[in-house]
Amino acid sequence: MSLYQKHLPVLERARQACRERHCWSPYPELPAKYPDAERAQALGLQAFESHLGGAGQSRRFALAQPGQIGWLGQEVSPYTQQALHIEYPQSDIDALFAAAEQAMPAWAQASLEVRLGTLMEVLDVIYREHLFEITHAVMHTAGQSYNMAYAGSGVNALDRGIEALVYAEQAMRAVTPSARWERSFGPSQIRLDKTYRIVPRGVAVCFACASFPTWNAWPSMMASLATGNPVIVKPHPATVLPMALTVRVFRRVLAEAGFDPNLVSLALDSQAEPIGKQLVKHPKTAIVDFTGSVQFGQWVEQNAYPALAYTETAGSNTVVLESAQDLDAALRSLATTLCMFSAQMCTSPQNIYVPRQGVRTPTGTVPFEEIGRRLAEAVASVGSEPKKAAMILATIQSPQTLALLAQLQDEGERRGQVLLAPRPYVHPQFPHARTSTPLMLQVSTAERDLYAGERFGPVSFVIACDSAQDALAQASADVREFGGLTAFLYSTDEDFIAQAEQAYARAGAQLTTNLTGAMPLNFAAAYSDYHVTGLNRAGNASLTQLAFVSSRFCIAQSRRPARDPA
Amino acid sequence: MSLYQKHLPVLERARQACRERHCWSPYPELPAKYPDAERAQALGLQAFESHLGGAGQSRRFALAQPGQIGWLGQEVSPYTQQALHIEYPQSDIDALFAAAEQAMPAWAQASLEVRLGTLMEVLDVIYREHLFEITHAVMHTAGQSYNMAYAGSGVNALDRGIEALVYAEQAMRAVTPSARWERSFGPSQIRLDKTYRIVPRGVAVCFACASFPTWNAWPSMMASLATGNPVIVKPHPATVLPMALTVRVFRRVLAEAGFDPNLVSLALDSQAEPIGKQLVKHPKTAIVDFTGSVQFGQWVEQNAYPALAYTETAGSNTVVLESAQDLDAALRSLATTLCMFSAQMCTSPQNIYVPRQGVRTPTGTVPFEEIGRRLAEAVASVGSEPKKAAMILATIQSPQTLALLAQLQDEGERRGQVLLAPRPYVHPQFPHARTSTPLMLQVSTAERDLYAGERFGPVSFVIACDSAQDALAQASADVREFGGLTAFLYSTDEDFIAQAEQAYARAGAQLTTNLTGAMPLNFAAAYSDYHVTGLNRAGNASLTQLAFVSSRFCIAQSRRPARDPA
Repeated sequence: MSLYQKHLPVLERARQACRERHCWSPYPELPAKYPDAERAQALGLQAFESHLGGAGQSRRFALAQPGQIGWLGQEVSPYTQQALHIEYPQSDIDALFAAAEQAMPAWAQASLEVRLGTLMEVLDVIYREHLFEITHAVMHTAGQSYNMAYAGSGVNALDRGIEALVYAEQAMRAVTPSARWERSFGPSQIRLDKTYRIVPRGVAVCFACASFPTWNAWPSMMASLATGNPVIVKPHPATVLPMALTVRVFRRVLAEAGFDPNLVSLALDSQAEPIGKQLVKHPKTAIVDFTGSVQFGQWVEQNAYPALAYTETAGSNTVVLESAQDLDAALRSLATTLCMFSAQMCTSPQNIYVPRQGVRTPTGTVPFEEIGRRLAEAVASVGSEPKKAAMILATIQSPQTLALLAQLQDEGERRGQVLLAPRPYVHPQFPHARTSTPLMLQVSTAERDLYAGERFGPVSFVIACDSAQDALAQASADVREFGGLTAFLYSTDEDFIAQAEQAYARAGAQLTTNLTGAMPLNFAAAYSDYHVTGLNRAGNASLTQLAFVSSRFCIAQSRRPARDPA
Repeated sequence: MSLYQKHLPVLERARQACRERHCWSPYPELPAKYPDAERAQALGLQAFESHLGGAGQSRRFALAQPGQIGWLGQEVSPYTQQALHIEYPQSDIDALFAAAEQAMPAWAQASLEVRLGTLMEVLDVIYREHLFEITHAVMHTAGQSYNMAYAGSGVNALDRGIEALVYAEQAMRAVTPSARWERSFGPSQIRLDKTYRIVPRGVAVCFACASFPTWNAWPSMMASLATGNPVIVKPHPATVLPMALTVRVFRRVLAEAGFDPNLVSLALDSQAEPIGKQLVKHPKTAIVDFTGSVQFGQWVEQNAYPALAYTETAGSNTVVLESAQDLDAALRSLATTLCMFSAQMCTSPQNIYVPRQGVRTPTGTVPFEEIGRRLAEAVASVGSEPKKAAMILATIQSPQTLALLAQLQDEGERRGQVLLAPRPYVHPQFPHARTSTPLMLQVSTAERDLYAGERFGPVSFVIACDSAQDALAQASADVREFGGLTAFLYSTDEDFIAQAEQAYARAGAQLTTNLTGAMPLNFAAAYSDYHVTGLNRAGNASLTQLAFVSSRFCIAQSRRPARDPA
């Protein structure tokens, strides 16, 4: 049985899910539901620990790549604030590009079924053999909680990978491989046989970010590879291990399937000597996938040419509170989502626009000041129980985020009101973890420069607006100008909801309305939720639609007179 | 019956043709087969003539656009070398963008069926009411022959328009308009209703070129409009009338369908004061479609950001002569194609790579020198009969082309051998037509700078190569480096053919092998032949595949708890 046949049932089901966009996944959402969970989790932890070195004796991560010039590794666990002491092979960039180009033709000439089958096998091997190892790797680099690392950086990211394969397949299957074409020109009858070849663009460079390494990288890699392109992965120097493990699985499965493992390789740099621009401007770079800061994302978009650029950065994710059926439930959901992974997600809400007149509820209008206070209380309650805090807030990935919080608290005190001051909480399992409860500020729209654009980390702004209309106008204008991926609305007024749907559609943020309950407001489901619209500065790549895959290959045709008799 | 229903049978047939890429068109290929042809042709000529002014009294072309600031018109017929004396309304650019943006929301919110039906109606109105008028307009601006203007700039361009609609529809129908999504999060059962909206990018600017105004512009306009975007058309100042007529039909049909006609407008400039860069860099420009010179095309690709750029320029279209079953037939086909519209087509062959050892045929090897001589004779014979010359060579669109020919002849005399010197021929119907028979030069690969890149007009180079292998290597390398849309091969060696198919697929030129007979070698059929691969400098936009349409819109979603009981 071919790998394609082996994985066809899942692929077929995924195709249906993408068509209908209902809820589906081949994977269990909770670690406890993983097959033989206890043993698998123990083995995963053990596998993760086997990578770690000790003080003065780094452990080397084996990855037989071409052009190795040294060893590099700087990762520090946000949970222990200790170095992981792992060193990874650093390869000469030109050697990686040359090897990738050499590997490409055989891969590009393989059938679509062979490529899809091999890539489905990669995802399956990650799931079956490395999921909990990657879970721990994500925890101790990105700083996510165990559950989020398992779901958001594990099975959900695998889902995004399958989804990218479905769309890549759809785009390529729209191209018939051959045709007979027949027509008369004057007295001649012309009969041509035409062949249409899928031709990959060339080497893709995939940047993975520090706080959410796999969720965007896996689908990007799948999109490029399915369409025949090799991929060089450039992880953030703070979060290498999840992508090193990823690259190793790709290389192993590709080699086992008879292909050159250099179709996928790892390019490393350090914070002191970044190679990002060099990779983007490399003459052999044909595609760039970037997840990370707005600043570098904008640079990529502007400078990638002649390479294609697919970006996902960040922006002002906005909340408009107009009215609520159950204000407590709304504030609780909002508070949990503001705390989720300490708001280090590109989808975390940040700016909360509230009419100065207050928020209407069935029991009367709740004054503006009370909204801020009650929301801050709800947020504070998440941080006050260490076990809950550990599960929801998790850790702070980078020390820079703590510095930003201090700076914003200072500015907030001068220019508005501090609704909630951040403080470290003690993680019950990891007493040395880098943690912080959220900072919440209350400001007026005069302080727009303070909240415009993403402030990465657990900080939010309750913004006093002149009216509900003004709140929506300010929020959607901020999204249009500074970018934004998600938006959240509470309103019992259908006209206002309809207006908001139009405004956010035009601004390009994915809107969630009146959601309460246990689902994080910013949860984005593969096969169903489109991630990023491409309509504002928060990124140009949407997971996943045809535009994400259809330019990664070209079509070259050849035609010649038919050789069989008419 | 809705416009969508009215045109559905044709659209359905077109969908099938795009899937299977066989030969099909809803239109008759020859003017004589047009319904009630004689009358229609007479009326078309009359309609064309009604636009013309006389010396000292220009006629004004009515087009009620916003922000008019003056009248402009500089067209000169290549057939009479006299001014057409037509003036077109020149509008303030900002006014056109503002009007286009204002027109967009209602158009974007119309259903896909309404947009498709309206756009099919536009094509139908062009076909039924303006085809021969546009035929004459193309003749007397672009300088094409009557038959080419009818087919290449008429029905074939309409076909390309329908084809773009089919792909736009396919990309949009891949997005389900809504979904019910249901999942448990811990104890909560979450049921969400999701809505997915197609959101247009924004205002598209469509540049049409001087020599082939409609063939790329119509599909580009269709691709943008079908996906909800308004279009500002910027014709070449030498070839305005075909696009002015086009814009007027769009505006009329859009208005009749209840939409704002400012969804389509005309932006004019003069050779002395071009506005191209201003349009590309306009803050409201979201999409640029460009057909024209390599130089400006490259500038567009590099500078369009944040707008999307779709380009089709030119390059070195190459021929490799390795061996031939019927050398005479091959040389005849090649000669006709070298002469077709005086090689003022982006698909015209230019560089003919021939092994110095000669070309193998069933009756022995024909020496290199003889190949050049016999090809030149075949080309000369086209130009020697005025009626045939008029039909095939037609006219020279721009006086600059004659200057280039003179310069290249001069260089060719010094650096190689002139196989055929250009001379004007007397057009039987238009004795003052700007004409020239082709220039043919024989050179070695040492003169690469002479033939590298497109030399626009009737000039070709017979290039002496070290071997058949060298011919293919040189030809495909020139395509990779300088761009190239088409490639042509004559070979009886299946291994060599297979090698050439690979080499050209990688270089990104659409290859035609061993074609002889009455079909022009560079004929590209809508629904079947992909035009431009996007793999080299000859352009990044391929007519038509999903990549040409799928980025012209984005997807914005909104989701909220389901309101009906579970």
